[in-house]
Amino acid sequence: MARAYLDHASTSPPRPEVVDAVVACLRSPGGDPGRMHTEAMTARVAVEEAREQVAAWLGARGREVVFTSGGTEAIAAAVWGAAERGAHQVVPAVEHSAVREAAARAGDVTVVGVDGEGRVDPDEMMAAVGPDTALVHLQWGNHEVGTVQPVAEVVAACRARGVLVHVDAAQAAGHVPIDFDDVGADLLSVSAHKVGGPPGVGALLVRRGLRLRPLLVGGDQERARRAGLENVPGVVGFGAAAASLTTDDRQRIEADEARRLTDRVLEAVPGLDGVVVYGDPVGRLPHLVCLGMLGIEPSAVLLGLDRSGIAAHSGNSCSSEALEPSPVLEAMGVDAHRSLRVSTGWSTTDAHIDALLAALPPVIAGLRTLGAARR
Amino acid sequence: MARAYLDHASTSPPRPEVVDAVVACLRSPGGDPGRMHTEAMTARVAVEEAREQVAAWLGARGREVVFTSGGTEAIAAAVWGAAERGAHQVVPAVEHSAVREAAARAGDVTVVGVDGEGRVDPDEMMAAVGPDTALVHLQWGNHEVGTVQPVAEVVAACRARGVLVHVDAAQAAGHVPIDFDDVGADLLSVSAHKVGGPPGVGALLVRRGLRLRPLLVGGDQERARRAGLENVPGVVGFGAAAASLTTDDRQRIEADEARRLTDRVLEAVPGLDGVVVYGDPVGRLPHLVCLGMLGIEPSAVLLGLDRSGIAAHSGNSCSSEALEPSPVLEAMGVDAHRSLRVSTGWSTTDAHIDALLAALPPVIAGLRTLGAARR
Repeated sequence: MARAYLDHASTSPPRPEVVDAVVACLRSPGGDPGRMHTEAMTARVAVEEAREQVAAWLGARGREVVFTSGGTEAIAAAVWGAAERGAHQVVPAVEHSAVREAAARAGDVTVVGVDGEGRVDPDEMMAAVGPDTALVHLQWGNHEVGTVQPVAEVVAACRARGVLVHVDAAQAAGHVPIDFDDVGADLLSVSAHKVGGPPGVGALLVRRGLRLRPLLVGGDQERARRAGLENVPGVVGFGAAAASLTTDDRQRIEADEARRLTDRVLEAVPGLDGVVVYGDPVGRLPHLVCLGMLGIEPSAVLLGLDRSGIAAHSGNSCSSEALEPSPVLEAMGVDAHRSLRVSTGWSTTDAHIDALLAALPPVIAGLRTLGAARR
Repeated sequence: MARAYLDHASTSPPRPEVVDAVVACLRSPGGDPGRMHTEAMTARVAVEEAREQVAAWLGARGREVVFTSGGTEAIAAAVWGAAERGAHQVVPAVEHSAVREAAARAGDVTVVGVDGEGRVDPDEMMAAVGPDTALVHLQWGNHEVGTVQPVAEVVAACRARGVLVHVDAAQAAGHVPIDFDDVGADLLSVSAHKVGGPPGVGALLVRRGLRLRPLLVGGDQERARRAGLENVPGVVGFGAAAASLTTDDRQRIEADEARRLTDRVLEAVPGLDGVVVYGDPVGRLPHLVCLGMLGIEPSAVLLGLDRSGIAAHSGNSCSSEALEPSPVLEAMGVDAHRSLRVSTGWSTTDAHIDALLAALPPVIAGLRTLGAARR
């Protein structure tokens, strides 16, 4: 049975051109880019080419790109780097756990609430800024419900106030246009595997002239901003994904297609028993939608869908084994225990959405019958 | 011209079976191992199989293996995790910069000197331990000169004293037998790319029952010891390298061959003008030797060798662009500016050593003539 993979927001399988680039790199005679020989130079050129590809994709300069092992490390580096400047950070309640937990560990945190669609109020964000605020966090778009945040407004206000701002764009990048220099953020974190790059690589963009203490020390790699041998094949794969997205208007075409496919899901919701839409159905990332499933256990829905050949996700985005209540949905004031996230990507087709929309009603009906019988 | 790559101690190109495993993983339909669907389960099984392979290779239990993005992160996690237990760490002067710099940042450090071959005195190590010592570091074997440290003795003394000990085995693993449970260390760090695994992945072994605060937070991956999506293809490649080394006595066979090949280099030294051996020529890691090149600029030697088709390394192991004096050689009391490190690996043959031994005399003679002409 052909599978319908609708969990691209968790991880989007590497694109064919990414796999080709990684494989070519693994098979070519590269060395440690920091050494003084031909193999080293080959690797260094590959890393720097990838850096330019990622920079071009995100509207940054090459020198502003610091490669990391992924979004989580990029976020941890932003938090750690800024924390020496003050004891306080501002964190919206709907940030990814990587931001919430890293910031909570770095010192005092003011958690800023959101409206029913998961959006912060810029004035409320800025009211949380104090003289000891080292860093303000704001995700570009939410990882569970897709709601896009007023990033430009908050960044501008932070800059006017002279406080550093970090934008977690891991879920948004590749799906909405991002221009780092234009938006003016100090720090922006992204992950390769969310856009069909390889896992194990990401980047922290650091605004030109901003100097932060590094999280990982003991080597001068990444202009002394991240020690440790470069993940050369990973970085090359990340570059290939970025290059794909910036070629032939691919990112916009994919985003339009994602919007069309996820809108099909939203349009079907009124016909689904006890199903509602969470988040902003319009001002959202195009590739993901979140549905509330009133009165049904989400794990049962996921297993039912999986048996029908469909991979999707529910709830808290970073709990590895248990489905815990979602802090994002809690902050929005909706049922935090029963959600279904459907997310598309470069490989998603109408057939996958057809399969979902065919499987969902019987899965829901079956679970409701089971629930009624148990009562 | 066929190249002679003699810089495996910097990074050892991925073994063919590793490349095959990574490619198969990249091309198979995997998901986020923390999700609830078939693709997730496929990825989780792959990660856990790799964990068992790495554990078996290093004499550890699977649950003791925490995958990281590499040796540097593993070391940083060990240092950070232990630092909340005390303000003091003990660091031999010849440790890798990743250990020296991370420990220096974590609080007070006592740097323990070494003898002329680069070896610590266990009594001196233990004399540096105080009531506030959180962690004692000792590398298994040195990354520049290969000298093997009295790890078993120091670990036993630390355990008797009740102080945590971390062994950086990044350079030794794959070249000497390592049995984590048998040696009894609390923490041990390794890197995949040093043994022909992929770059971008490593592991911190954490003794059963030892709980340390994680360096990266925001997800329950690795039993809540390292947040962030698992680098599934990287981990699978690491597992493949470990499995290779534990099959058909491969690690011992490769080590014997490495010893024979590097002994050929040592035997040639008396015939080389102004060249000496640094480190312990016998009690050393089998795959690397360090030569002193009296009065010659190492960068000129490296470039001369590279032009002759040979990749080697000199000096400070983790300076990305400049050849800085080596803290290891400084601590040994030898010329820290003029060294040549030759290191072999799984792909090294006698022809590579032949090429080195043929190229080295004319390169040295040429540089000496040039130096004399300049004077």
